[in-house]
Amino acid sequence: MEIRLAREDDEAGIWTVLEPVIRAGETYALDPDMTEAEALAYWTGGEGKETFVAVRDGRVLGTYFLRPNQPGGGAHVGNCGYMTSPEARGQGVARAMRDHSVARARERGFRAVQFNFVVSVNQVAVRLWQAGGFEIVGTLPGAFRHPRLGYVDVYVMYQVLEG
Amino acid sequence: MEIRLAREDDEAGIWTVLEPVIRAGETYALDPDMTEAEALAYWTGGEGKETFVAVRDGRVLGTYFLRPNQPGGGAHVGNCGYMTSPEARGQGVARAMRDHSVARARERGFRAVQFNFVVSVNQVAVRLWQAGGFEIVGTLPGAFRHPRLGYVDVYVMYQVLEG
Repeated sequence: MEIRLAREDDEAGIWTVLEPVIRAGETYALDPDMTEAEALAYWTGGEGKETFVAVRDGRVLGTYFLRPNQPGGGAHVGNCGYMTSPEARGQGVARAMRDHSVARARERGFRAVQFNFVVSVNQVAVRLWQAGGFEIVGTLPGAFRHPRLGYVDVYVMYQVLEG
Repeated sequence: MEIRLAREDDEAGIWTVLEPVIRAGETYALDPDMTEAEALAYWTGGEGKETFVAVRDGRVLGTYFLRPNQPGGGAHVGNCGYMTSPEARGQGVARAMRDHSVARARERGFRAVQFNFVVSVNQVAVRLWQAGGFEIVGTLPGAFRHPRLGYVDVYVMYQVLEG
């Protein structure tokens, strides 16, 4: 599996990863009905954002972005979003993207990486981030309305990279 | 003092409040060099955002916005930003906007209000939010680069409104 910067001709492959995750609406605070164009604009566009794809045998299995979490005095902290194709789960794709993104964040000179919105019941993700050095630094009570479970807590997670 | 929805002809007045706060760069993670047009677009535009002004004798002394903090499954949590004219400090403008915004958030049906980025050394603000029912639910180590103090912590603050 190779992780590399996304190219324009990856858009269809990225959408195969984004679509089921967005439509399910269980892990991201995104409109489950957003269009392909809106989703791709969100995932690949924006100031200072780099989008990567995890590819095996020409198929996009996962994708992540890295961007400054804030402008101005907050621009030294990076922010990432990750999505893995439901069919590719359990194959280490998310773990590989996690490690790639942290290395890339160091390379870009970010002093920390922050996840703003980790749905607490997404336990596989929470454990994966913790195993990669991220800590829960905040809990937002009932901040996510889960389609099956109702209002659940959300974690803010953070990893200091400096030094 | 009256607090009301901003109108198009308030833009010049809003800018007199925003400009010194943005240029100082001590309390918001915004580019200190952003233009008037960029600042007004940020403060008054965007999905579901309402912008209010605090006015006395025809002068805008303060302004705040209220918007959903996230789309999709996070849209039941509101988010606000507040700025007070440096010349109008100590006159209860921020306190009045705080109370107005929480009442308006209830009215709009938000179940909570979240502040994503409260600079910890901005102690006047932190105490004002705490006195109004907001709690520090997260601390982001070194997430703000203060122009004089260097890297300082940032708080995530939250108030549950339901019930």
